[in-house]
Order: sequence, then C-alpha cells, then structure tokens
Amino acid sequence: MDLTFLGTASCYPCPNRGVSCTVLRNEGDCWMFDCGEGSQIQIQKSNIRPTRITKIFITHLHGDHLFGLPGFLCTIGQSGAERDTPLELYGPIGLRRYIRTSLELSRSMLGFDYIVNELAVPEKELPADWESWQPVHDSTGALHPNEKPGRLIEPDEHGVWHCYGDKRITVKAAPLTHRVPTFGFVIEEATLPGKLDSKKLLDLGVPPGPLYGRIKNGENMTLDNGDVLTPQDVLGPQRLGRKIVILGDTSCSEQITSVAMDTDILVHEATLENELLDKCIENGHSTPGMAAEFANKINAKKLILTHFSQRYRAVSDTLKEGEESVGKLIKQAELVFSRGDVVAADDLMQIVIPQH
Amino acid sequence: MDLTFLGTASCYPCPNRGVSCTVLRNEGDCWMFDCGEGSQIQIQKSNIRPTRITKIFITHLHGDHLFGLPGFLCTIGQSGAERDTPLELYGPIGLRRYIRTSLELSRSMLGFDYIVNELAVPEKELPADWESWQPVHDSTGALHPNEKPGRLIEPDEHGVWHCYGDKRITVKAAPLTHRVPTFGFVIEEATLPGKLDSKKLLDLGVPPGPLYGRIKNGENMTLDNGDVLTPQDVLGPQRLGRKIVILGDTSCSEQITSVAMDTDILVHEATLENELLDKCIENGHSTPGMAAEFANKINAKKLILTHFSQRYRAVSDTLKEGEESVGKLIKQAELVFSRGDVVAADDLMQIVIPQH
Ligand SMILES: [Zn+2]
Ligand SMILES: [Zn+2]
Ligand SMILES: [Zn+2]
Ligand SMILES: [Zn+2]
Repeated sequence: MDLTFLGTASCYPCPNRGVSCTVLRNEGDCWMFDCGEGSQIQIQKSNIRPTRITKIFITHLHGDHLFGLPGFLCTIGQSGAERDTPLELYGPIGLRRYIRTSLELSRSMLGFDYIVNELAVPEKELPADWESWQPVHDSTGALHPNEKPGRLIEPDEHGVWHCYGDKRITVKAAPLTHRVPTFGFVIEEATLPGKLDSKKLLDLGVPPGPLYGRIKNGENMTLDNGDVLTPQDVLGPQRLGRKIVILGDTSCSEQITSVAMDTDILVHEATLENELLDKCIENGHSTPGMAAEFANKINAKKLILTHFSQRYRAVSDTLKEGEESVGKLIKQAELVFSRGDVVAADDLMQIVIPQH
Repeated sequence: MDLTFLGTASCYPCPNRGVSCTVLRNEGDCWMFDCGEGSQIQIQKSNIRPTRITKIFITHLHGDHLFGLPGFLCTIGQSGAERDTPLELYGPIGLRRYIRTSLELSRSMLGFDYIVNELAVPEKELPADWESWQPVHDSTGALHPNEKPGRLIEPDEHGVWHCYGDKRITVKAAPLTHRVPTFGFVIEEATLPGKLDSKKLLDLGVPPGPLYGRIKNGENMTLDNGDVLTPQDVLGPQRLGRKIVILGDTSCSEQITSVAMDTDILVHEATLENELLDKCIENGHSTPGMAAEFANKINAKKLILTHFSQRYRAVSDTLKEGEESVGKLIKQAELVFSRGDVVAADDLMQIVIPQH
C-alpha cells in the first residue's frame, strides 16, 4: 500500500507543482483523492497506471480539486482498457451535475460506465453566502449514456458518511470547515484475525474442516475430552488494519475527529505558514501549527502536509533571495507534533504504508 | 503581431505537449483560441501575460479544446488584475452553460465580468447521433454573478458568423466538418489608407486642416485654381491588413473557403499522416495533405500545422527506434503546398506576423 502525491499546490497549477490529486494504491487497485487540473498530465509522470483507478473521491468542488476530472475521465475512456465494474465517484452534492454537464457538452463517450455517489450536505455546512447565491446543484434529468444511477449518502447518527465498505476495507467521510461544503476521507483496513495454529489443532485431535473456520471466526469449541478450546488458544495475534486519513481543505477538522482517531497517516493541508494564521483561517485553510495540533488530537502516527501556497518552493529547490521553502512549514509542524514524522508532500512523492 | 502556440497535441495533454491553445497578440492585447486542459500551466512558461487576454474564442466543445477554460478564468480572476471591460468569450452554443455550470458548482467568483457570445449552430451542423442523444445546451436561468448577458450570433446570408469588429480588426467564423459543431475563425485587420503626402499638399497651397482628413478618407478636393485633386494624387499606397485563419478540428473546411481567401497565415490541424487518411476522416480530422490542399485552395501564404497525435515527436526530439516526428507531416504538406512555408507548431513556438 502506498500514497502517491500527484499535485501538492493550492489554488492553481504551476509547471513545478500540480494542484490536489493523491492516489492510494493497494495491491494494484488505485483510488484517487481529488483531481485538480492537469492531474492526467501528472499521472503520466508517475508509475500509476491511469486505467487502474477504480474509485475517485472528491473532497470538495473547488476548481483546484475538481477541474482535472472531466479530462481524466475522457482520457482513461480513450485508452480502450476494459473495466469489469463501473468507475465509482464520491463527492459532495453537485459533483454528478458537474461531471454530467462537462461530459455532455463536450459530447464525450467514455467507453466504460461510471457512477456518482453524492454525499448529502447538511444545512449547517452550506456556504455563508448561500442565501444570496444558490446555483442549481441537483442532477435530475436524463443520465449520460455511460452513467449508472448513484446513491445519495446521508450521514449516520454519529455524523459519519459511509461511502464504501467491503470485508477488507472501508471509506468513511465527515465534514470539514471550509468556504464550501468539504469532506475528509478515512480509509481503514479491517483487522485480520490471527493465523490459525493448525498443527496445535491436529495435535488436540481436531481434524481439518468447517470447525477451523468457526474457531477462526471467534467461536469456542468443545473437544471430545470435554475441554473447551477458545480462539485465543489456537490463533496468533490479530493483524491491525492500516488507517489513512486524507482531508480536503480545512480551517477546522473538529467534526472528523472521532472517525480519524489513531490513524497511521494523516494527510492535512498547510496552505500558509503560522505567521499568516488569520489570513489562512479567513480563506478556510490551515497553518502547519493547526495541522500538527489536529495530528496530536487524533493521535496520528505520521503527518503529511500538502496544498502549499505557490509561494513556497520544494525543499530540494535552490532558494533565491527572499524565497521560502516548505521546509519552513515542516519545522513549524514539528514544533507541535513530535510523536511521529512530519513530511511535506512534493509532486510525484510516494509514501509506502507498511503493514502492521 | 504574433501567434504563440501553447498546446499543439490532439486528444489529451502530455508532459511534453499540451492540448489546443493558441494566443494571438496584437500590441499587447491578447486573444486566445481554444483552451485545453493545462493551458494555464503552459501560458506560465510563455511570455504571454494571462491578464492581457481580453477575448477567448472556442472552436468547439471537445475537451481537448475546452477543459482548461474554467481553471484559466479562475486563475486570472485570482490575480487581482483590474479589467476595464468584461472578458468576452465566443464559441458554439453550450459554451455559456458549460462555463456557468463549472463556475457555479465550484462556487468561483472571478473578480471581473465576463460575457459569453454563442454562435448559433444550424441544424445541418448537428452531430450525426443528435437524434438519439440531445443533452441540454441552453443556459436559461440566473446568470453567474460575474456574467453579463451575451449575444446569440446567427450567420449572415453568406454563412458567415460576425463575431467581433471594430475599426481596426474583425473576427468572422464559419463552420467546419467535425464530429461536433465546430468553427474556424478568420481574423482580419482593416486595410489602412496610405500615408498623406503633406509636403505635396502644402506645395499645392492646401493648408493643414479638416481637408486633409477628408482626402485621406477618399474624397476628391477642388483646388483654388479649379484643378481636382484625387486621393491617389497625395496618398501613398494603402497598407493591406494582415489576415490570420485559425481552424478548429476539421475533416472538410469547404464552408470557410470564401471568408478565408488570401490569408497570410493558415493554422490547420494535421492529426495523422497521409497514410492514415481513412481513420483521420472517420474521426473528423485532417492529414497534412488535406491541410495543404486547403491552403492552396484559399491561396494562403503560410501554413502552420498543429493538433498532432501524441505518436509524433517534436522535430527537435531525438527519435527512438520506430518513432516518427512531425517532420514527416511537414514533408507531406510541402509536397502539396509549395507557394509558402509549412511549419509544424510546437508548444511555446512563436510566429511573428509582420506588417505588409
Ligand atoms: Zn484547495
Ligand atoms: Zn478549497
Ligand atoms: Zn481536438
Ligand atoms: Zn475535436
């Protein structure tokens, strides 16, 4: 499992830094988080195969997280690669309308099916000026020829949006504070039961068969001699699943706290340095200090900063007079978050997430 | 006056070649033709200042000519540069809806006003499968807060769409044959009257004053001695205006012939080599041979090929085994068009258009 950062700039793309796009690769299956303009160019520079992307999660509909999506869909559509199942997309209400309108007006056929699952936006998450400017966000009317009906995902009673789940992995979302409705995503692997000690079972006289599965699933077993065997007797230690939290733009991540607890990786924006705190919050963004505080709060093991203002150069760049690098932002986060690594994402950087 | 090619690839952008975007610069005033994804990155590599773009012309709504537009608008909007007059956009019906939807759903305010003028699409230009798939193209409903009402431009009786005109320059359009409604644009400077020979006028006893302007504007003048002075007597040769023809994707440019005649520059797509003629026409595109034939037909003085399939490398690239460069396409065009230069556009190439 690894994370690849395809764009790490805020606001607009530059030749040396793309806008938000991050890919989580898990045994060849790739999930994209945000798709700013130029992401399809950036992915060509990486070792991610665009046709391996099976799900795309959009944190919010700001252009620097969204405007690369129609082009990306068209380009993977033209590749001619077969897909067994539709590409699934997840994002705030309005995403379906945006994709459909872009594909329809450009008259783009994709060569594969897609589904847009929209995250319902509660009234309290609406933008401050919603009263005065309420564009149409719904997507009634005919579907695009490649579109299959998607779901409306409502929050559960704990304020958690359950986006995806199978036996192996789940994706949950919760809102963040930003200028428009924005979500953070929590990707969590299931905890795997320990390995069955089949030699011990054989020694105890239990023959291979369905009993093995039942004890592995947590049931006790009574042996022929009357002894009761518990799962702990014949199972190795459980293997904890990995947890990755990828946030959208945020000036307060309070609402995602409980679902993000104890994450292995926290990907958090740090648009501007601590000294620009007021401006940062006013624009709905975070400083390294804010990111680090949240990392502490959720007991994260590693903090990856991203979404940097174009004023910051890469750590590896040679700085000219008056220029700052993201190194400054790393230092500011390290002052607050000390229990794990702080990393500044850079375009095409890959972070391996080892198994526990 | 010069032309800058910001993207010269067909279909999708690559790290070494962007998709369609061409800028015509005329005394600091810049007009953009098409805006494929990544154009805002490409323009940063050029010497064109994005805030100097005052008009944007879109040949057709395919993604490789369009998907960079919302991001480009947002980025110049964020620059904070003042604009005296609204940015004017021109393109086929559906452009206004596309821009409005993209800006509304991303909740983007631009900081300047814009106007979308749509070119009416005659029934015979509708896509072949229009009967079975007719997405909504209109843009009824509330305008974006930065949007001012635009015009619907209908063709005149000669099948010419008059997009823009002032004393100095006009922009006309006519349809091309492609998979979706597509236009070519003809930019033409006014012919300037010759320079007034004021020394000769003084010698003839005509004092400086309003009479000078009248003779310059073509009126005859009777001298005190009864002689009649014609403009030709005191005017140098007229200065012919420059003419530039920028076509969208096309597999037949018949309909723009008369308005494109005698152009100084013809920018014509050449997606695939002559050997792939059938595939090329099937996809609505041209070969170098087709481009050159059209250049001959309209008596063009210079032919610039662009919109190349990603299979062709730049002329300056070192070719690996089995690779072809656009040099092959130039040669094929030169075999047919011999009265002027054939140039293959390359990203960031600038072509100066000297005065006559
Ligand atoms: Zn952002
Ligand atoms: Zn944002
Ligand atoms: Zn094209
Ligand atoms: Zn096209």
